[in-house]
Amino acid sequence: MKLLSFKFNNQVKFGPKVKKEEAVWDVLAIQEAFQVFPAFPKTIIEGIALGYDFVEKIRRLTEVAEKSEQAGKFKLSFTEIEWLSPIPRTPKNIICVAKNYDEHAKEMGGEAAPSDLVIFTKSPTTIAGDNQVLPVHADKTDSLDYEGELAVVIGKEGKNIPEKLAYDYIFGYTIANDLTARDVQERHQQYFLGKSLDATCPMGPYIVTKDEIPNPQNLAIVTKVNGEVRQNGNTGDMMFPIDRLISIISQYVTLEPGDVILTGTPKGVGKGMNPPQFLKSGDEVKISIEGIGTLTNRFE
Amino acid sequence: MKLLSFKFNNQVKFGPKVKKEEAVWDVLAIQEAFQVFPAFPKTIIEGIALGYDFVEKIRRLTEVAEKSEQAGKFKLSFTEIEWLSPIPRTPKNIICVAKNYDEHAKEMGGEAAPSDLVIFTKSPTTIAGDNQVLPVHADKTDSLDYEGELAVVIGKEGKNIPEKLAYDYIFGYTIANDLTARDVQERHQQYFLGKSLDATCPMGPYIVTKDEIPNPQNLAIVTKVNGEVRQNGNTGDMMFPIDRLISIISQYVTLEPGDVILTGTPKGVGKGMNPPQFLKSGDEVKISIEGIGTLTNRFE
Repeated sequence: MKLLSFKFNNQVKFGPKVKKEEAVWDVLAIQEAFQVFPAFPKTIIEGIALGYDFVEKIRRLTEVAEKSEQAGKFKLSFTEIEWLSPIPRTPKNIICVAKNYDEHAKEMGGEAAPSDLVIFTKSPTTIAGDNQVLPVHADKTDSLDYEGELAVVIGKEGKNIPEKLAYDYIFGYTIANDLTARDVQERHQQYFLGKSLDATCPMGPYIVTKDEIPNPQNLAIVTKVNGEVRQNGNTGDMMFPIDRLISIISQYVTLEPGDVILTGTPKGVGKGMNPPQFLKSGDEVKISIEGIGTLTNRFE
Repeated sequence: MKLLSFKFNNQVKFGPKVKKEEAVWDVLAIQEAFQVFPAFPKTIIEGIALGYDFVEKIRRLTEVAEKSEQAGKFKLSFTEIEWLSPIPRTPKNIICVAKNYDEHAKEMGGEAAPSDLVIFTKSPTTIAGDNQVLPVHADKTDSLDYEGELAVVIGKEGKNIPEKLAYDYIFGYTIANDLTARDVQERHQQYFLGKSLDATCPMGPYIVTKDEIPNPQNLAIVTKVNGEVRQNGNTGDMMFPIDRLISIISQYVTLEPGDVILTGTPKGVGKGMNPPQFLKSGDEVKISIEGIGTLTNRFE
């Protein structure tokens, strides 16, 4: 299932993409009209916390609407909604892995990827949606850079999660751009400030539920800036694969439903180019991951 | 006003300390009984977002209770409540300042405090209350260390806050212990993992509203371990004072009501001793800040 969050009539809603149509099912409206379930989550994070039952309930709601002879009423065209990040607000800061692709670690400073996992965070105030026009923050940085990344959405609370059980804790996957103010990142040593400017974590367009991605460690990931391929990697090149990431992080931090882990970026960021190429007003960044889709943002 | 959060009958509540008594006013119960206001916040963060009006409303509720001839019914003795952090859950990770006292920066690595602010975060799953017994996490670290700190509670949303207006964005102050797994902190370069073990950010006992602390840059701060004075500093020794901290952080990160900024620790942490002295099961840490109170936690 491809699940998205959106604004419609000033309300934050969520729902699955309608198959073969550029539209979303308004499942909250279906539930309200037909009262299919005694209770249905009001927010996507409440839903995710129910586990796979949430996906089943959503599927049931779309079936009820389809059979009701007024299905059209419950489909909203992509042109009439405002896209939000599929998780509009994470319960804690977004958890990010630094230097998880060897070739990227080298382009950033000449050294190989570190043997111990490096984790930093981005404020949830950085979250933005697909298609949203984003600021380049020219008053704060002269070096805003893109980082295309596979994002893992956590489905249930866990700590000390063994590698072998890690996938039980995943709800699905989406795409993120870990936009970074390189000058701020370097000046302040710890990455948080340089990683936390407003709207520097667009995510989307969908969460693809994990059943549709049997092997998340073999997905092509491509970042284009104004149509030019800058990053052309594969999630199979992660130094710390997803199960190890979840296992190590959860040794120290309790993970919660709706938490998002950004799994690191492959080589090809603007800072690694000669000369470096940072984002400027008018640029468009597209990040595509096989089986998930394409996250598109223009900058102003 | 000294404002605390607590659990009573399995409900999360908040209220002001009763003057000259070891008790708290149950303001949610007063509001429910007398319906003094058409609407009253259900959570302390909703309340803080109302600004000083929240404090006025709380005061009014306590007056109504006192005049009602059943005042006793609305006072809960400190012995019958479970203390929570005054902010039980921050809206984003706790924002922490590293090396904000010169002598502490030196004890940590021999160098003076950095000229550019160093900010890291702690997961909100680290939050714990006064009097709570905390784990030493012996299975994860052999070097859990205390850091007594003045914590600033943000009262309203802001970005690009000028230094001169910074105090307008403060709701009040409390005490925090930024407990740190030194080995994890060092091994993983970025501090987040070593700073985010469960229950490693006890805070409390109260938020003291800012009107009661006319000069937060001249407060004695003392940390004792098992009665022995380890840190004996003054908030006047911060390299980046509170107004500059808020101004710089808000250039990069949008601050929100209920956000907490830990302002750094003075010298005297366990790692700085010769030989280093880390926390062990049975230890008791007490952090006192002039005008605020004492935060006490035992370790098991």
